[in-house]
Amino acid sequence: MTRTVVESKTKTAVLGFDEPFCVIGERINPTGRKKLAAELEAGDFSTVEKDALAQVAAGATVLDINAGVVYNSNPNPNETEPPLMRKIVELVQGLVDVPLCIDSSVPGALEAGLEAAEGRPLLNSVTGEEERLELVLPLVKKYNVPVVAISNDDTGISEDPDVRFAVAKTIVERAADHGIPAHDIVVDPLVMPIGAMATAGQQVFALVRRLREELGVNTTCGASNISFGLPNRHGINNAFLPMAMGAGMTSAIMNPVALPVTQKKIAEKKAAVAAAGIILPEGMDDETFVQMFGLGSTKPRSGKEMEAIRAANLLTNNDAHGGEWIRFNKSPDEAAAGGAAGGRRGGGRRRRA
Amino acid sequence: MTRTVVESKTKTAVLGFDEPFCVIGERINPTGRKKLAAELEAGDFSTVEKDALAQVAAGATVLDINAGVVYNSNPNPNETEPPLMRKIVELVQGLVDVPLCIDSSVPGALEAGLEAAEGRPLLNSVTGEEERLELVLPLVKKYNVPVVAISNDDTGISEDPDVRFAVAKTIVERAADHGIPAHDIVVDPLVMPIGAMATAGQQVFALVRRLREELGVNTTCGASNISFGLPNRHGINNAFLPMAMGAGMTSAIMNPVALPVTQKKIAEKKAAVAAAGIILPEGMDDETFVQMFGLGSTKPRSGKEMEAIRAANLLTNNDAHGGEWIRFNKSPDEAAAGGAAGGRRGGGRRRRA
Repeated sequence: MTRTVVESKTKTAVLGFDEPFCVIGERINPTGRKKLAAELEAGDFSTVEKDALAQVAAGATVLDINAGVVYNSNPNPNETEPPLMRKIVELVQGLVDVPLCIDSSVPGALEAGLEAAEGRPLLNSVTGEEERLELVLPLVKKYNVPVVAISNDDTGISEDPDVRFAVAKTIVERAADHGIPAHDIVVDPLVMPIGAMATAGQQVFALVRRLREELGVNTTCGASNISFGLPNRHGINNAFLPMAMGAGMTSAIMNPVALPVTQKKIAEKKAAVAAAGIILPEGMDDETFVQMFGLGSTKPRSGKEMEAIRAANLLTNNDAHGGEWIRFNKSPDEAAAGGAAGGRRGGGRRRRA
Repeated sequence: MTRTVVESKTKTAVLGFDEPFCVIGERINPTGRKKLAAELEAGDFSTVEKDALAQVAAGATVLDINAGVVYNSNPNPNETEPPLMRKIVELVQGLVDVPLCIDSSVPGALEAGLEAAEGRPLLNSVTGEEERLELVLPLVKKYNVPVVAISNDDTGISEDPDVRFAVAKTIVERAADHGIPAHDIVVDPLVMPIGAMATAGQQVFALVRRLREELGVNTTCGASNISFGLPNRHGINNAFLPMAMGAGMTSAIMNPVALPVTQKKIAEKKAAVAAAGIILPEGMDDETFVQMFGLGSTKPRSGKEMEAIRAANLLTNNDAHGGEWIRFNKSPDEAAAGGAAGGRRGGGRRRRA
């Protein structure tokens, strides 16, 4: 059986057909998060810390670390990303014990992350682009780590799933030339938005099955892409993840956290409550208010996608005796702390070659 | 392509690999519903009427009608069920326009339902039991209707999926001897509770795929069986349905309605609200209270399973351009009234042979 082993100093996450789904938390990434980018430039890591803790509490078993920020003070990421990557990796692994996924388009940042990470991190990513293959595969070999392989190449992202399969196959073959085994390649078959391409779901399910049966590799994806541009994105994601798991997908890069209710929503609800003639006691705090009126929580919580994944773990017989499902439904936080959705307390730290 | 056509006087529901999932509402069934059974014995059909309307509003495209009640006044269902079946069929088709599924273990009730139903109802069910085959298949032929085939036989329900597949194959062959085509057989591969059998999900997914690929038949199941005995059953069902659809399942017999909040829950919440020092305006009605405090609704609504099914319709490319998904997320009731989750406004009423 194909097993991809990812490790921190003390914990192991295994991607495999007979393993619980591996949830790779995507939040530590300044791309498209202006506020976070500005904080990082100012040396403020409080959001990174919060995101690390919240994602692990929600059930992430690996954390993706992307330091892809463009500073106002220095627009050259080749200079700024490597030290920032090192800093964030050190910070996060001092805070939580899950394995990391080192994510960058800047080669220097990949190497900085690999140097800083304890254990056996996942590298994110190689593509079928010639230059990228030549840059990344030697790093994969040197550090003896598994790598995410995204199925686009120098011609771009093909809409034809057969072409994307062929690109994945090429990457696996090129990796083999470097002495990297197929079980250390985690293919991302690329998820298109279903709103733009009606066959996007069917493509992914068919590709995942082929990748598993013909190449014997584990798979991952940016799960939320599927629902881009459509209403009720969570509703689509919640169905997509179990379907992908049923087809054989073994991990996803995603946000496991349900975002806390916003101040705006609280204010709107308070106005509606007042308009209905309901009188609140003086000094009621926001968390009590939010819970009493069914708005969720002011604190980040495990998202509905995590419920869907845990149910699918049960349905694919990757939750023996339903133990995790029962624990999760008693107390989501406790279950996550036990590494429910794919984590294992690792004894065996594997030394790199 | 395999298409199973079920019709009322004015509406058509099609089961097929390239059709939206067919939701067969299961609520009109006194089995295990003592209150409903007593009402029916007393000639009170108000619950049946409510269940019919609520299920169609929630998105059911076929309604199952089971009159399996044992009267206190007459314990012989062979005498009581046929007239009750006729009565309920007439009542329901006077109220809603979706096709019906005539469901009974009593042969006389099956025939009474077939006589009373307009259009082309689905018959529920035949099994691989010798006596049942000889009783039901002639009815299927005589009335030219499709039939649900449950994959157990005289030896009972096998835990071995290969045996269940063989039973389904036998039923299809026996039906062919009667001149009944495979596209009029809807196989129920039997869903076991995952809490009792860890491989129950994998069995169903593999069986559905085989039934589709090797026998070319449509499939259905009692979907909620999968979660029997476990906590948060809806969470399991919500993942199971998309996974089954991904494997090729084309319908399910299920409850599409989220039950309204109970008086008990309302009373508990009112106590909690008072304890928190919140003062309600005098005469606030229950529906306003329930909505204001995020308890849902006092009225029946479309259940979360319907959201999962609609998302899976989109992901299997059976919701062209996401039209139904977008409508549903604007206004669930309007979408259901348009026959969203599998219904079609039928022009062509097909006359029986």
